[in-house]
Amino acid sequence: MALSFDHITLGQRVKFGAGQAAHNLAAEVERLGAQRIMMISSKSGVRNAEKIAAHINVHTWHTDVVMHVPKETADKARQVAADNNIDLLVSVGGGSATGLAKAIALASGIPIIAIPTTYSGSEATNVWGLTEDKRKTTGIDDKVLPKTVIYDSELMLSLPVAMSVASGLNALAHCVDSLWAPQADPINAALAGEGIRALNTGLPKIAEDPRDITGRDEALYGAYLSAVAFASAGSGLHHKICHVLGGTFDLPHAQTHATVLPYVLAFNAPKAPDAEARMAAAFGAENALEGLQNLRKQVDAPQKLSDYGFASEGIPEAVEVILEKVPANNPRDVTAANMTALLTAALHGDNPAALDW
Amino acid sequence: MALSFDHITLGQRVKFGAGQAAHNLAAEVERLGAQRIMMISSKSGVRNAEKIAAHINVHTWHTDVVMHVPKETADKARQVAADNNIDLLVSVGGGSATGLAKAIALASGIPIIAIPTTYSGSEATNVWGLTEDKRKTTGIDDKVLPKTVIYDSELMLSLPVAMSVASGLNALAHCVDSLWAPQADPINAALAGEGIRALNTGLPKIAEDPRDITGRDEALYGAYLSAVAFASAGSGLHHKICHVLGGTFDLPHAQTHATVLPYVLAFNAPKAPDAEARMAAAFGAENALEGLQNLRKQVDAPQKLSDYGFASEGIPEAVEVILEKVPANNPRDVTAANMTALLTAALHGDNPAALDW
Repeated sequence: MALSFDHITLGQRVKFGAGQAAHNLAAEVERLGAQRIMMISSKSGVRNAEKIAAHINVHTWHTDVVMHVPKETADKARQVAADNNIDLLVSVGGGSATGLAKAIALASGIPIIAIPTTYSGSEATNVWGLTEDKRKTTGIDDKVLPKTVIYDSELMLSLPVAMSVASGLNALAHCVDSLWAPQADPINAALAGEGIRALNTGLPKIAEDPRDITGRDEALYGAYLSAVAFASAGSGLHHKICHVLGGTFDLPHAQTHATVLPYVLAFNAPKAPDAEARMAAAFGAENALEGLQNLRKQVDAPQKLSDYGFASEGIPEAVEVILEKVPANNPRDVTAANMTALLTAALHGDNPAALDW
Repeated sequence: MALSFDHITLGQRVKFGAGQAAHNLAAEVERLGAQRIMMISSKSGVRNAEKIAAHINVHTWHTDVVMHVPKETADKARQVAADNNIDLLVSVGGGSATGLAKAIALASGIPIIAIPTTYSGSEATNVWGLTEDKRKTTGIDDKVLPKTVIYDSELMLSLPVAMSVASGLNALAHCVDSLWAPQADPINAALAGEGIRALNTGLPKIAEDPRDITGRDEALYGAYLSAVAFASAGSGLHHKICHVLGGTFDLPHAQTHATVLPYVLAFNAPKAPDAEARMAAAFGAENALEGLQNLRKQVDAPQKLSDYGFASEGIPEAVEVILEKVPANNPRDVTAANMTALLTAALHGDNPAALDW
């Protein structure tokens, strides 16, 4: 196949090591020559953050972290950073802490070191988001891309198994969907394949023993790759479907992704032979769907949308909205009939391998 | 395996497409808002470069390009750039043209768009090199990393098969060696695996038909990935050996790499199971060595060092110098005895699978 693509690689340093966050943070602070550090963490995460900051001088602690980064919260944090002549932002936490650091960086250009404690992936992207009057605005700016990400899977040990699995399968969905998303390209595909491999190895270990550091390392590494691939490739059919289910029907994010993924894979993969081959190889399975279902069995993954408040009455409306959002490059034609079949199967947890679209 | 690594991803845009160089260059010039462009190409490459510049306004043409970037050549080019208030450098050519653009960027910070016409890989790295009094100085500076690389495999069509194969196997050696180089890490390994896959698919097509654009695309894409992986991972045992053979014995670069690679692979892979598994999968072979040898057969690769001016009398000296340069993290202990065996086998083209180290 002749290759034609346009790929942007975001420049970033990754320091990865279990139990190494405090050490790696001190090394990065010294390398960057930062003098006035603002440490950003939620109140509940501040004890963790204090341990991570053990070897650095923190000028300002900021714990006013709110989900979805409300504009007022961002404005207050920006003012704190300005008043204190901050020259480095260090965020410890999930998407909310990273997001607040990004909001400050967007206005000020102050560099960020991000230390994630979930699989949200925001730390690996140049995407920012702010919420005002319940509306979320997002944008892209290289200023908000953290200069360095410090991954320490010991910080994940307290994440319960069910949440780890759902969140890990959400990361897996980023990998799979990036193979046929609007900006899919071979570089994204290579990273996504590696992400699938890592998540497929790591998640079953976590399901078996949530304190298994090897499994936590592999899942965290896979989640990082999934964020890189997805940020570059954009949202494919899977994410369009899940956003409709989340936005219009308020279904829970990670569980929805985990449930819907095998159906989208079964639908698209037969028309996307390169993606199919790459996924099968990454799963180490005969075919991609078998690999995914085998993983889902091992981690006791969510099974059907009816468990999460979706009902058959919602299908027509969901299909209507989905049809407006289908990416033009989706490998298989999307129709009201096949989306109805897909959602019906996902609602009941039918075997996706047995579907005749 | 628990993961611990420190990885730097270099931020860069890649625009890839056969026959698209002129179009992609015009789009990038517009995106960057460049007004005073200096076009750098060797005299022999200037016709090609003129075609590529068809849709842009070139302010200054510069064709004083010399191998290994002599300091005087660099100083002259820097002066030209300064005298003309250049705001964008566009290099068209191999490592010499890219290297001259980097020398200007190092002194001035002027951004570069690189359009490679060989598999040298310099366009994907932040490494610069200058030669003064026959001594080469190299360094690392993000200023010299091209902002954008434009790959167009039609520009490779004139590269003869033998040179394409040797150069492609040299790129393959970058991939293989990056798996056990000093800064080897899983991200480099993922990119290297993808590079092996692409080169293994593309090079046989070129050997069969040098005008096969699909094969040229795959090889060029693989060579790009090899440069990214190798720049990050550093030189492993293979490159240390080949640098000694090139430096001390003046053997030809690409042919030396192509000949030595199976012996280093046979030596290291049994002690590097992750690398072995990744290479075997990328080659689509039972094991990595079988995959490499199968590829070498298809492309009629160089067979033995005796064909390139090396002789058994050179082995003791070569071994002595190699032993001083062995990377500390090489997966297998390196001794005078096993390096002597390796070079003896490579000298005669013995079957590497049959060697007992």
